[in-house]
Parts: sequence; structure tokens; C-alpha cells
Amino acid sequence: MRHLLILPALALVSAAPAPPKTPTDAIAASKPAEWAQIPADDLLVIDLASGKRVVVELAPQFAPVHVANIQKLAHAGYWQGANIYRVQDNYVAQWGNNDSEKPLPAGVVKVPPAEYHRALKGLKIVPLGSPDAYAPAAGFSLGWPVAYDPKRGTANLTHCYGSVGVGRGLSPDTGMGGELYAAIGHAPRHLDRNIAVVGRVVSGIENLSSLPRGTEALGFYKERTSDVPIASVKLASMMPEGERPKFEYLKEGSASFATWLRLRKNRKDDFYIRPAGGVDLCNAPVPVRPVGG
Amino acid sequence: MRHLLILPALALVSAAPAPPKTPTDAIAASKPAEWAQIPADDLLVIDLASGKRVVVELAPQFAPVHVANIQKLAHAGYWQGANIYRVQDNYVAQWGNNDSEKPLPAGVVKVPPAEYHRALKGLKIVPLGSPDAYAPAAGFSLGWPVAYDPKRGTANLTHCYGSVGVGRGLSPDTGMGGELYAAIGHAPRHLDRNIAVVGRVVSGIENLSSLPRGTEALGFYKERTSDVPIASVKLASMMPEGERPKFEYLKEGSASFATWLRLRKNRKDDFYIRPAGGVDLCNAPVPVRPVGG
Repeated sequence: MRHLLILPALALVSAAPAPPKTPTDAIAASKPAEWAQIPADDLLVIDLASGKRVVVELAPQFAPVHVANIQKLAHAGYWQGANIYRVQDNYVAQWGNNDSEKPLPAGVVKVPPAEYHRALKGLKIVPLGSPDAYAPAAGFSLGWPVAYDPKRGTANLTHCYGSVGVGRGLSPDTGMGGELYAAIGHAPRHLDRNIAVVGRVVSGIENLSSLPRGTEALGFYKERTSDVPIASVKLASMMPEGERPKFEYLKEGSASFATWLRLRKNRKDDFYIRPAGGVDLCNAPVPVRPVGG
Repeated sequence: MRHLLILPALALVSAAPAPPKTPTDAIAASKPAEWAQIPADDLLVIDLASGKRVVVELAPQFAPVHVANIQKLAHAGYWQGANIYRVQDNYVAQWGNNDSEKPLPAGVVKVPPAEYHRALKGLKIVPLGSPDAYAPAAGFSLGWPVAYDPKRGTANLTHCYGSVGVGRGLSPDTGMGGELYAAIGHAPRHLDRNIAVVGRVVSGIENLSSLPRGTEALGFYKERTSDVPIASVKLASMMPEGERPKFEYLKEGSASFATWLRLRKNRKDDFYIRPAGGVDLCNAPVPVRPVGG
């Protein structure tokens, strides 16, 4: 019965019958024009010493100063000798230079503004259409999952599986971007609006989520010899054109996104008996794929 | 700054000031009488050949026939030679005898009733008090996270991180309990009411969530040599008294549970700036600990 057990993840793209019956079908039936390519400056390519790769899409639309810092740190080779030094089960994997006090490259803002949310004004949002436990409303904008509060007039990137945030100390510290974490468990939405979310892992999250868990408090590795060494961290724009990873996301305003979201809420293929009629924001991850994929 | 980054997980118990300021404080301040011990018949102890252990609490209150099957399978040694043969990132780890057609032990029901939900009547529920994207309401009952529908008069166990369900084929198959999976990523709530949830991992989930991901469709391991061998699967009640793992959960009706839930919704220690004022069901996992822990 192995091939019948539980629905495939979005990643598994199959031939699309018409009309689409599953979220996967909706992606397969989408048109190239419904996808937007992610700029090479917004792709942080993290190569582990193991040869495995993690690619993070940065979100300058939501945390411009933190993202500019991260881009400058990448150009300056700030993460040479960096490690993944913390893996806490059902929470985060975290990397950077940890305790070491490296001098900051020129132009890096030591304490950026608290870019924990932004003005709702000017954002075009496609509503999720299901209730959210953490905010008055949730939806999608500029290719990102967002929570928002029309009364306050604010919107924020949310902590979902694979979201990348900036480690910080106690306020007024906001984290300069040298220590980053990715969520590797159930969405830690309670961190929303308390930390700068700067992006999401678009490829290779399994290379973080499958790492051994740290045994110290907060999942820090006990011995430095347990740290997972990072070979290099580059922006895709720093790589030769031919070597750059390229990704695109399905525009939330597209017809295929609407179909995909409707089918995420209403699974009714041969396997499903009762469609939920709803979905939570972090269980509807914006479809991202290699360009032309 | 390593010790300041992001709040500790619930597992990290620190000395409790009064009044409790964090969920961890609430647990530390709880009284022994507020905890209920899990029966030894309801603890499925899975020892991997690696020496690592995963302990699953079964939920006879919600899936009695499936759970009775699992208990009979354990007594019959059905899982001798079983493996973890599927690990799909952000989804599930699955184990059992996979393709092999083992004869069913006496008394095992080949096709149990579809125990995907139960009658709401007779269940005392402590409401979550935050909106749910998948059901009219969510809360806690008998130590379990539940979603419920007063109109339909039904309640169901939910798929949260660590929830254990029964792999099945297409309906009318309901899965006899030989192939089990645990959720190792963001709560796959869309599976609720479509599959029998029979329990949750109360210890050792990291021994499933950190396994290498399978490279085949649905995260199945490509080579049988990649399978993760299981040394034994026993009920705690099958073990000598002195060797039995013992766990207890915080009763949802207790004062400490109420405090804990309030603080899960409203993080306002030194780290947090903006409490969410809400929490989603799967981000408020019922506190479970070793007895006396």
C-alpha cells in the first residue's frame, strides 16, 4: 500500500488533468506568465562544507535595512568560518559566527530599526480567507505570507516553516543580521512582530531540518566539534551567470494561485474524504520552484 | 549573544518566580495533583536499532478499535523486523512492515470503523479561545488537542507536530494500524477527519524528525538499505515495572494549564515586545513530562 499513503507534498508535480483536482495539478496547469522570478540579489546561497546547499530568498520589501545588512555581510565574506551551531527540535536551526566578535564590514548598520512590521498602506494583499489565531487577518502580498491589522494599519511577514529571521538580544537590540535562523518545525507565529523576518528558505530546508538536534539549552550544540561548518555564503548575484540558482514564485494575484489556494483548502481527490474548507496561512506556502521547473 | 536568542522551548524548565511570567514558569509552578499519569497500556515504546527510543501515547478515547489493534500488534510482535521507510520533509516519518504482507495476529480488525472523529457529546472541552482555520472551534479534552463542530456534534483529534496517525489506502480502507506515521513538520491539519489519529509522540520525536529525508516520491527511501531498522515495539505494560517509561500530562482543567495557556498566548517576558494575544492549537502542545519530572 506504500504508494497510497497520504497525499504527496506540493513539491511532487504530476501531469495535470483538467480541471485541476489537487494543488499539485493547479501548479502543473499554471502558465509561465503567472510566475515571477526572484532577483539574484535577493537569493542568499549557503553552501555547507558537506556539499549540501540551502538557498534563502530575502525580503527587502519588509525588512530593507536588515536585508541590506545581510547583502553587505555576504559581499564582505562575513560568514567565512561560520557554522550552524544551534538546532532546536520543532523550532529553529541557527547559523552565523556565534560567540566570535567579528568586526562589522563598512556600511553595516549595527542596530537596524525594528523592522518587525511595515505599513499596510501600499501593500496589495490577497486574503487567505481563513481565520488566523495571531492577527485580525492573513493573506499573501508580493509573494510572501503576511498577517495584517487594518485597524493598526500594519502588516508583517509571518514565521512559517522555512521562514528566516534575525537572531537578536534583548530590546533595543534588533539583530544586525549576522546570526540567522530558519524555522524547522510548527510555525512559531508567536515570534511574529517580535523579530525581523528577512526571508524564507526556497531550497534545501531539509539540509537544516534533518540536522542532529543540539543537546544544550535552546538546542545549542554542546561541543564546537558538533557545529555544522558553512563553506560559503554568497548572493546569487555574486556568482557567474551560468552557476546562479534561479527561482520563481507563483504570483498571488494569478488565476492559478487562486485555484491552488482553493484546492489547498478543499482536498477532494481520491484520498480525501472530508475537505476542511479552510487552511492556515503556514499550511499554504507560496509555491516556489526553480525557473522553468 | 548566544544565550539571549529566542525563547526557550517548553521543555526547558527553569526555576519559577511568582507570578509565572512564561509558560515554562507556569509548568514549574504546577502542583503534582494537576498532572495525570498515562496508563502503561497506552504507551507504545519503539526502540530503534540505533538505541534511540520513541514513545507514543495512544488515544483509546478517540480511536478505540484502531488502538486495540495496535495494542494487539504490539503483543504479537507484529513489528519485528519493521523499519522507518518514509521520511518526508515538513510532513511525516512513517514506519511499519511496508510492502511485506504479514499475516494479521488473531483479533486484529482488518478494516476498523472510520474513527476519524467521535461524538462531541460526553466530552468536556476546555476551549482554546483562539480562532481555528480548520474547524468551528478548537480546544483540549482528556489531555488531547481537539477540533470540534457543535452543529455536527463531532470532535476529532488534530494533526499537530508529533501526532501519530494510521496510514491507509483509499477508502473504504481505514488502515489496520500496522503502518503508522508521526507528523514532523508544520501541522498537516488538512488530514484531520480523513485519517485515524491514534496518538502522539511524548518522547523522542527528534529521533524521527532528524532522520535523513527520503528521495523518492512522498519521501520514501529509495533503497531498502536506507530504511531505519526498529529493534522492538512494546507497550510499557509489557515491560518489567522497573523498566517502564512513565509520563504524565497537565490536565486541561487545572489552574496551571489555564495559566500556561494564557502565557502561551501572551508572551511578555524580557524577550518579547508584542504578545500575540492568541495561539493556534498546535502551537500550544499539551504539557507532557516524565512522571515526577
